[in-house]
Amino acid sequence: MVMYRSSMPRTKGDHEARRRDVSEAVWRVLAAHGFGGLTLRAVATELGATTGLLTHYFPTKRDLVAHALDLLDTRSASRPRRTAGRGLSAVRAALLDILPLTAEATASNRIWVSSWDTALADPGLSDDYARKYGRSRDKLRDLVAVAQERGELPAGDPGRVAAGAQSFVLGLVVQALFAPAAFPPDRQVELLDDYLAALASQPSSGGGHATPS
Amino acid sequence: MVMYRSSMPRTKGDHEARRRDVSEAVWRVLAAHGFGGLTLRAVATELGATTGLLTHYFPTKRDLVAHALDLLDTRSASRPRRTAGRGLSAVRAALLDILPLTAEATASNRIWVSSWDTALADPGLSDDYARKYGRSRDKLRDLVAVAQERGELPAGDPGRVAAGAQSFVLGLVVQALFAPAAFPPDRQVELLDDYLAALASQPSSGGGHATPS
Repeated sequence: MVMYRSSMPRTKGDHEARRRDVSEAVWRVLAAHGFGGLTLRAVATELGATTGLLTHYFPTKRDLVAHALDLLDTRSASRPRRTAGRGLSAVRAALLDILPLTAEATASNRIWVSSWDTALADPGLSDDYARKYGRSRDKLRDLVAVAQERGELPAGDPGRVAAGAQSFVLGLVVQALFAPAAFPPDRQVELLDDYLAALASQPSSGGGHATPS
Repeated sequence: MVMYRSSMPRTKGDHEARRRDVSEAVWRVLAAHGFGGLTLRAVATELGATTGLLTHYFPTKRDLVAHALDLLDTRSASRPRRTAGRGLSAVRAALLDILPLTAEATASNRIWVSSWDTALADPGLSDDYARKYGRSRDKLRDLVAVAQERGELPAGDPGRVAAGAQSFVLGLVVQALFAPAAFPPDRQVELLDDYLAALASQPSSGGGHATPS
C-alpha cells in the first residue's frame, strides 16, 4: 500500500509511477474481489488514497471497469509463455500457458472468469470477447494443423480440434479456481495430457460419433 | 410485467403468487444483466413495483443475491433431463443436459457463468460451488464407471475421466455463450461427440501422456 498526499511532487516520472501504482491497486482489488467488488472506494483503500484522487483517473465507474479490462488484456498478452518446439508439443505448451498453474496465472484466470459477468451483460463487450476467443482458437488451430501434418494428431478439421481443446482448458480453469485442492497443478497437467492422449489415439478426428444421436 | 398496488387483496394464495412473480422478475433480471446488474431497483422495474415493496422480500442486497443463488439451484435441480439408457449413452445424455442447446438452458447457463464472479469473491460460497461441482463430477463418475464395465469406454480411473468431461462441457458452455453463432446447438453436439469418440477410442485411459513433460 502506497500513501498519496496532495503535497507529493508532480513530475512526469511521478505521474507515470502513480499511474502504475493505481493499476497495481486495481489488479489487486480484482484478484481479491472480482469485477463485482471493483469500486472506486475499494481501489482507494487498496492504494491508501482518497476516492477523490481516484476520480481524477476514473471519472465514472465505467472508466474504472474499462481500465480493468484493458489491464486484463495487456497483462494476458504480455504474460510469460513456455518455449516449445513444433507440433503437438507446441499445442500442449499453448494450453499449459492458459491453466492456473502458478499464483500469478491463478490471479489472472480468476479475474478473467470474473470478467465474464461484466462482458455477458454488455453486447459490445460480449462481441469483443467472442472475437478474442475466436483469435485464440485460430492460433490453436494453426498449431493443431502442424501437429496433424507431422502425424502427431490424426487428420481432420483443425479448427474443430482447436474448439474442443479450448473448451477443455477453459472448463478446467473454472474447476481449478473453485477447487484448488482437487485440481492442483500436477492434476491439471495430468488431465490435459489425458485429453491430448485421447485426441492423438483417435483413428481420425472431426467425424466420429460415440453413440447414435 | 405485473403491476402491484398497495390495494391488492392479501390472501395466502396471493402472497404465494406474488412470491413467484418476484422470483420470476429476479430470474429475468439475471438472464438479461447477470449478477452484476442485479439490484432491487432493476427487479422492481421488471416487476412494475416499487423498491419499497421489494425491500419487504429482500431487506438487503445480500438477501437478494442469496435468493438469486437459491433460484439458480432450484431451477437447475428441477430442469428437464434427457432419458437415457445406461453406459456411454447415459454419460452423453448427462453432458448434453448441461449444454446451452435451448433458450431456457442458455438463460440458465448465462446466469451460472455470471454467478462465478459472486461465488469466487466469497470464500463460503466458493466452497459451496466446489462441493456442487464435486457432486456433479461424482454422478458423472458413476455413469462413466458403468460405461467402462460395459466396455464402451476404456478401463481407467472413472473420476479422472469425469473431471475431464466436466471440464470439457463447462468450457464449451462458456464459448457458446459468447459466440452463439460459432457454437449453435448442432456444433456443440458435434464437439461433444468428437470428445466422447476420442475417449472411447483410447487404448486405456488415465495413464497416457501425449508428450513427454
